[in-house]
Amino acid sequence: MSKIVFGVDIGGTTVKLGVFKVDGTLMDKWEIPTRTADGGKYIFTDIADSILKKIAALGYTKEDCAGVGVGAPGPVDSNGIIYGAINLGWGDVNLYEKFTELLGMPVKAGNDANVAALGEMWQGGGQGYTDIVAVTLGTGIGGGVIIGGKLVTGSNGAGGEIGHIPVEENETETCGCGKTGCAEQYGSATGVVRLAKRRLALDNKPSTLRKADRLSAKMVWDAVKAGDEVAIDVAKQFGYYVGKMTAAIACVTNPQAFVVGGGVSKAGEVLFEYIRPEFERMVFKPCKNVDFKLATLGNDAGIYGAAKLVLGE
Amino acid sequence: MSKIVFGVDIGGTTVKLGVFKVDGTLMDKWEIPTRTADGGKYIFTDIADSILKKIAALGYTKEDCAGVGVGAPGPVDSNGIIYGAINLGWGDVNLYEKFTELLGMPVKAGNDANVAALGEMWQGGGQGYTDIVAVTLGTGIGGGVIIGGKLVTGSNGAGGEIGHIPVEENETETCGCGKTGCAEQYGSATGVVRLAKRRLALDNKPSTLRKADRLSAKMVWDAVKAGDEVAIDVAKQFGYYVGKMTAAIACVTNPQAFVVGGGVSKAGEVLFEYIRPEFERMVFKPCKNVDFKLATLGNDAGIYGAAKLVLGE
Repeated sequence: MSKIVFGVDIGGTTVKLGVFKVDGTLMDKWEIPTRTADGGKYIFTDIADSILKKIAALGYTKEDCAGVGVGAPGPVDSNGIIYGAINLGWGDVNLYEKFTELLGMPVKAGNDANVAALGEMWQGGGQGYTDIVAVTLGTGIGGGVIIGGKLVTGSNGAGGEIGHIPVEENETETCGCGKTGCAEQYGSATGVVRLAKRRLALDNKPSTLRKADRLSAKMVWDAVKAGDEVAIDVAKQFGYYVGKMTAAIACVTNPQAFVVGGGVSKAGEVLFEYIRPEFERMVFKPCKNVDFKLATLGNDAGIYGAAKLVLGE
Repeated sequence: MSKIVFGVDIGGTTVKLGVFKVDGTLMDKWEIPTRTADGGKYIFTDIADSILKKIAALGYTKEDCAGVGVGAPGPVDSNGIIYGAINLGWGDVNLYEKFTELLGMPVKAGNDANVAALGEMWQGGGQGYTDIVAVTLGTGIGGGVIIGGKLVTGSNGAGGEIGHIPVEENETETCGCGKTGCAEQYGSATGVVRLAKRRLALDNKPSTLRKADRLSAKMVWDAVKAGDEVAIDVAKQFGYYVGKMTAAIACVTNPQAFVVGGGVSKAGEVLFEYIRPEFERMVFKPCKNVDFKLATLGNDAGIYGAAKLVLGE
């Protein structure tokens, strides 16, 4: 019987790895650098080597291991094929085949934001729910839709790309995706900074934010908590756009809860004071009864979710 | 072994019933009036009587029957509880219990728009797909989300309420749901008429639509096909709002296809000439590869889908 399982979260700079007992207890976690040279081909062997060494170091064999789950930054379909991961240098790759060949163990793979959602449902802020949407407010906005305990991968592996729901028709700046008016242009960490800069440029109203050399989302939310009126204007705009995004989602899948993570979520429950009223104003009434919860696993959500992929959703 | 299965679609005026072979062949369909008097209590007995009589008339017994599926106009959760159906006079009712008691056969139930989506996937415009979103452009806009062949019921039975996705911030008129700026205020049959009236009031540009005593969505689309420039303006607005709605949906579940039905869909493929460009402009690129298909079962989608609920999604 399997005793341990591995979760791997591949990022553009580092690969996070974790080894878990099959009951979900994290035994150990560590990082290795992401070597993107030569089309990212070393990433596969680096990860495999690291896992095989860890199994030996812990005194286990492959037979003790339920398998390896992998989260990767790109659309991953239900056959384990990732359709390009620009940050890693990868084109289209079958992750199941690639890692199974190197590891000789069962492998599962998914999109990193989707996998993190699964982690939060298993051991984080989404525990006890079966139908959640994870909302990751980081550099961009990622998401993961879980229905009946299972990830919605989507027909091209692009399920849960909620950061690109259109929420503003009059935007002139372009989103990283090439469109304009995407939710992530307002609700992400960079979005909050953008909103703050725009607000500051409007007038000369005093604000602690004017003293910052380099504005950050954290500064904005700290100022909100301190009662800074300009920062509160920014928070209201943030709430409007994230409220509209979550309202649209709720009209599609009618989830039990939104689990909000990513760097911006470090501001805490104050986010929901601005999101919730706008969400309630814009959502269909029978879908209004939704919990807003903070994610709790931080940067470990990916390794938890990747491990859970192997153990079965 | 079961030979037949019943599908029931309860509407505010009539109840549609169908009896199918278990392979999906429609053997017979008929209608009975919906008696909404006395809190709608006769609806249950009328339906049960009609089914039991039909079984006898066809020379079958209850043992030959796989069961009865029911679609009803309200949110129905996964336990078969409908949370109010105003048009029928019902409060909260457990449809499984109510009909099982009267029929002595297995019963399944779902929201009417969701059930119609299942019907279209089984025997209609969605055949061959496993991940579709049905978009019903009728008096309002209904919807049904199907992922991996299964209906997304939602945590309060309100999955697929896509007509209430917010798409216009500057709307002043109120939607039937109490909000403003819902997709169904523009994309439904009544929405198309509203858009046409607004466009006609803008200026005095000649249009065949000015001659109509009572505008209808059909008149607008007929005029579009005839090249009427005012009607084409209306079609562009329709395409903008339905395009935005479908783009938002695709960023959440990344479906293979949208299957478009309801009265407005009788206009045919011309709808997609106006929806598709706006959809493509506003959707996240990896979700762009979606088919737009016309529903083919018309008013029978509900009885097909209700029967399929019993046979297993």
